[in-house]
Amino acid sequence: MNARKTAIVATILLVASAAMAQKQLTLENTVPGGYDFYEHHNHRARGLFVSNSDVFVRNETDGYHIGNITITRQQIDDALATSQKPSMSYVESWIDTETVWVYSSEAEAAYCINLKNNSVTDSITNIPPDATIDFAPDYHHAAVSIYPSLSVSGRSENRTIGNGGNGVVFGQSVHREEFGIEKGTFWSESGRLLAFYRMDESTVAEYPIVDITEREATAKPVRYPMAGETSHEVQICIYNTDNQNVTYLKTASPVNRYFTNIAWSPDDKFLLVAEINREQNHLWMNQYNADDGSLIKTIFEEENPEWVEPCTPAMFIDNSRFVWISERDGFKHLYLYDINTLKAKQLTHGNWCVTELYGFIAATGEVLFQANAEGYLTRDIYKVNLKGKMTRLSSGYGVHSARLGNAGTRYIDDYSAPDYAILSTLCNLADGKVIDTIRNVKNTYEGYTLPIFKTVSLKSADGRFDLCGRLILPADFDSTRTYPVIDYLYGGPHSQLVDASWLYGASTWKMYFAQQGYIIFTMDNRGTENRGVEYEHCIHRQLGKCEMEDQMVGINYLKSLPYVDTTRIGIHGWSFGGFMTINLMTTHNTVFKAGVAGGPVCDWQLYEVMYGERYMDTPQENPDGYAQNCVADKIGNLNGRLLVIHGDIDATVVWQNSLRLMQNAVTSDVMVDYAVYPQHEHNVIGHDRVHLFKRILRYFDDFLKP
Amino acid sequence: MNARKTAIVATILLVASAAMAQKQLTLENTVPGGYDFYEHHNHRARGLFVSNSDVFVRNETDGYHIGNITITRQQIDDALATSQKPSMSYVESWIDTETVWVYSSEAEAAYCINLKNNSVTDSITNIPPDATIDFAPDYHHAAVSIYPSLSVSGRSENRTIGNGGNGVVFGQSVHREEFGIEKGTFWSESGRLLAFYRMDESTVAEYPIVDITEREATAKPVRYPMAGETSHEVQICIYNTDNQNVTYLKTASPVNRYFTNIAWSPDDKFLLVAEINREQNHLWMNQYNADDGSLIKTIFEEENPEWVEPCTPAMFIDNSRFVWISERDGFKHLYLYDINTLKAKQLTHGNWCVTELYGFIAATGEVLFQANAEGYLTRDIYKVNLKGKMTRLSSGYGVHSARLGNAGTRYIDDYSAPDYAILSTLCNLADGKVIDTIRNVKNTYEGYTLPIFKTVSLKSADGRFDLCGRLILPADFDSTRTYPVIDYLYGGPHSQLVDASWLYGASTWKMYFAQQGYIIFTMDNRGTENRGVEYEHCIHRQLGKCEMEDQMVGINYLKSLPYVDTTRIGIHGWSFGGFMTINLMTTHNTVFKAGVAGGPVCDWQLYEVMYGERYMDTPQENPDGYAQNCVADKIGNLNGRLLVIHGDIDATVVWQNSLRLMQNAVTSDVMVDYAVYPQHEHNVIGHDRVHLFKRILRYFDDFLKP
Repeated sequence: MNARKTAIVATILLVASAAMAQKQLTLENTVPGGYDFYEHHNHRARGLFVSNSDVFVRNETDGYHIGNITITRQQIDDALATSQKPSMSYVESWIDTETVWVYSSEAEAAYCINLKNNSVTDSITNIPPDATIDFAPDYHHAAVSIYPSLSVSGRSENRTIGNGGNGVVFGQSVHREEFGIEKGTFWSESGRLLAFYRMDESTVAEYPIVDITEREATAKPVRYPMAGETSHEVQICIYNTDNQNVTYLKTASPVNRYFTNIAWSPDDKFLLVAEINREQNHLWMNQYNADDGSLIKTIFEEENPEWVEPCTPAMFIDNSRFVWISERDGFKHLYLYDINTLKAKQLTHGNWCVTELYGFIAATGEVLFQANAEGYLTRDIYKVNLKGKMTRLSSGYGVHSARLGNAGTRYIDDYSAPDYAILSTLCNLADGKVIDTIRNVKNTYEGYTLPIFKTVSLKSADGRFDLCGRLILPADFDSTRTYPVIDYLYGGPHSQLVDASWLYGASTWKMYFAQQGYIIFTMDNRGTENRGVEYEHCIHRQLGKCEMEDQMVGINYLKSLPYVDTTRIGIHGWSFGGFMTINLMTTHNTVFKAGVAGGPVCDWQLYEVMYGERYMDTPQENPDGYAQNCVADKIGNLNGRLLVIHGDIDATVVWQNSLRLMQNAVTSDVMVDYAVYPQHEHNVIGHDRVHLFKRILRYFDDFLKP
Repeated sequence: MNARKTAIVATILLVASAAMAQKQLTLENTVPGGYDFYEHHNHRARGLFVSNSDVFVRNETDGYHIGNITITRQQIDDALATSQKPSMSYVESWIDTETVWVYSSEAEAAYCINLKNNSVTDSITNIPPDATIDFAPDYHHAAVSIYPSLSVSGRSENRTIGNGGNGVVFGQSVHREEFGIEKGTFWSESGRLLAFYRMDESTVAEYPIVDITEREATAKPVRYPMAGETSHEVQICIYNTDNQNVTYLKTASPVNRYFTNIAWSPDDKFLLVAEINREQNHLWMNQYNADDGSLIKTIFEEENPEWVEPCTPAMFIDNSRFVWISERDGFKHLYLYDINTLKAKQLTHGNWCVTELYGFIAATGEVLFQANAEGYLTRDIYKVNLKGKMTRLSSGYGVHSARLGNAGTRYIDDYSAPDYAILSTLCNLADGKVIDTIRNVKNTYEGYTLPIFKTVSLKSADGRFDLCGRLILPADFDSTRTYPVIDYLYGGPHSQLVDASWLYGASTWKMYFAQQGYIIFTMDNRGTENRGVEYEHCIHRQLGKCEMEDQMVGINYLKSLPYVDTTRIGIHGWSFGGFMTINLMTTHNTVFKAGVAGGPVCDWQLYEVMYGERYMDTPQENPDGYAQNCVADKIGNLNGRLLVIHGDIDATVVWQNSLRLMQNAVTSDVMVDYAVYPQHEHNVIGHDRVHLFKRILRYFDDFLKP
């Protein structure tokens, strides 16, 4: 996929608008959290497949649609009332079209309801509403996490299986949600065994998050391990619902080791754990005995000079085979492993990436997945059999993603394209043919004046890759005028801002900004995702360097455009994008007139161990790399107007980052504007987000536009 | 002094400038902390009277000037070296012209040096450099405070007399420096007894000040009692250097009681404590036995419907009489008390205030003090005998302050006037005649282009008082043009910004702002000091209300001036002035185009008990008063551009104030600009202050000037 094109090419997208009087975009209808936002953004059809068939239950305002039948929420509550139970809070799962598990916060219980005879047929009690609930597949038990402890509830009993405190937590997500870890409890397929995390954070420094909503502000510290400092220690335990025993996996020392991607074998006999050293350049795929926690064997190891980063647990085909995603050939591909022979077979090949793994279709022996094999802006749905024969199921240029039915015959294809907001269809797994249309909205802003979208292909600074830039031009764009431009960027790992989805993936506030007379430019640089190892790993030990080189390619392209005012180039980003904003403004300090950096990492030493050391190694190992990209220390180079924004309870990029930057700005006699969003974490969310974008726009209106 | 004038009158001050090429003011030479600032601001002659005579030892760069002799620092170090002692860190005290006590941090000791024979004649050891040191008058001991403990050092011993910890502190200033309290140790005149404070703060809520300079930010909590909440408890102890016993004063319960203004009788037999209830409307002047700590009697009580606030300890005349400052007749005056008869005699009278009490001249039986009897902008030095005969010693319109020699025959008069920077003279106590000129600098900015100073007298909003406003006009002022104006204000208790000192008391950065084309206006409103009880107490239970009414008198005056652009009125203040800035901008929200509020109290509930409840009572007692002046809640009314600035380790007006305001601004859909000065406390000091004023000026340049 590298260097596919050599000339700059531009595509123009004009979202069709009728000649009739058009409505105007507002921040309220283009910013998530705006009161009018969600009427334009109910994109994907909400709903669930039932547990033991491929019937899709759509969740609509008037109730649950199962084929032609609609089951109202009132019907479910009536069934509960018949059994003297309080109303439900939400539907947990459809077992079949007549049987549903619901949760009631009032009852602190889950109920199984037979809708045919309006009876409650089963229940799990002792589930308080402030808990994180993980139901066993057989609904005999639920894992109930209330930080820092974990218990298991069943028909009538509740048993604490991990009693946390003093820096020890049970049943929570670990390793700061890196390595694809999203939760801390893992039921075996039978529901008999529960694997769960135990994390000891007692030796990790406490960062003092301050809660100003108390009568007097109160410190609410979080354990935040900074790069190079002491990290937490994680262990994996197994609870046996039959005998109530807890067994610890007999792993290597948990000091400086990551335990990721837990996967149960279908027969409950063992589990796989992808273990990684603190340096993150060596992975051991270990098989543990579920009975006694002993290590059976290491199935394979993987090494990489920069890093290894598994993010998708092994998917079992049967009790002796699983599918694994690896980047070992330079791109994310599927591998079939045999646990007995330890042999691996690569199922997919090519200069493209597997982007999602949906599941295994037992009947046909095929794996369903998503990949960008048709082009890095697109996503399509594919299946591959265990011999490596791959079939594309989706059609139509754009982004397709799948939701797989449980019986293995059907799936939902959620599709969007640059000029098509959403088309959700129920499809046959056999051939991808559409069975039913679930949701179809071509333009979520029908009747509104929309800006003009353009894309452009540019060569990365090293000449090896094509980068895709997206321009949003004001609706009344006049090529004889010049416009101020804002480079909106992120640029960090695991991101792709421009793709072939609705409006080329642009978040809609950018359309509002364009309406105010700005050109909004965005381009994914090297280091972002879905482009293979070479493209992504060049950032190693020098976060910011290649990323900035590529962004400057974009800036130079903008400067070449006759309708861009080269004296009015602005820049804006959040998080890694905030870091990039400041880095670019201080490195190329005559280019940018104004910038806004939100929640920026200002010194990678202040970021956490898992993410930070993967890309940068430790500060002790890589002092130059840390120093060269420490924007807190580079702030003295600033010329343009810079607004830095931070949430005061940000526990991801801690406030110390921008405060340290502000302190250095004062020492360096440089002026940085600032805004704090009190009681917001890493992102300003909810309706306050409208205020945030009002502020960002006002800043550009004050200092970029004139 | 009230309503002395009815018409607006203006005086104009043009600081004479030669016709030669003038230098321009800079922030560096007009802002404290600027590298060029202090060459213009070495106003008052530095030095000390020797302990047992009226010889004034001037401290100059080349050494200590005693009459015609100069003693160099090297001479003192040579004397120390002769006795194998390390160099001194500073001179502590001149005993006579040949005997000096010095402190050496290297030796952690104080030495008495005879300069005649270059010998060390005495010493006190065990005084670490990080301690607060209070030497006994006889230099036999020193009280050595290292938070939270207190010890006493002598010739060779060091004894801990208060071992603090767990919220208990010994020997520190208490009650948050209110009631004139500046220290925590009080030697008796003989040096035999040491009174000291013990404060139990263990029940006071901890405010989490965060130190971002640590590798990982660290909470360093301070005990901060907020209005209406649990406060600390204070006791007074006496240490006897003869027998090493510590005796506690047997006071009433320390719960909700303030122990202020400790004063020793000359014979060491007893001490006086001005005790005040938490409501601060009742004072008991209590006499305690120094031997056993027992209460001997209450000498008098004072009550006031609003508040009583003693700030000057009793000054003993002899063992049975003392002078006390009280506002009981509506103005601060001197009262002579007889401890035996409990009778009081008012020594001074009139609609003016005693502003400083300098001492008692034993030889003539007179009290030396400062007052504003000639007009509220001026200060003069007076003496009054014990029959009430008052004599003015100083002459010349302006501000005089005295430093009294120890033998009671001479004093230094430090004088300045609007057009005279500093004239320090050594004067006779008998008649105020000048003996010698110590320092004489007419214009600290000689050779610089200075702006034009004007004053104006305005009637307070209630028509009862004259208020003095000060205008600073650009040097090239053109009355046919219009100018933007900035109201710089404070407005809180214990302040007077306009007086008859050098440049009418204006801090010099205002001259720099004027040079940039702004008119700077400042006016003291009702509630500020030195004007009597009626003027000052009108703020009770409604902080901000009268103050704003008066400031609006000033604003309306400005609007009446043909050269003021009424569409470009700005406002700036810090602390109480920050509160006033926001209060005015949200109450009169069409008047101010731009404002800058630093370290603002945004909700009096977030301010401390001692100051807050004196003026506002508790939030429980006065919910309406708190609500009406809670600018955090009024921020939704804002129209103009407002920049709020706060130091992140401010332990006076805690950060919660402006963070709460910012949170409410977001909720109210109002935009407030913000700046944080990391690792600064309530005031941005040091060289960073130059940056601060650069920011403030830039803000007005951005949003007021255009």
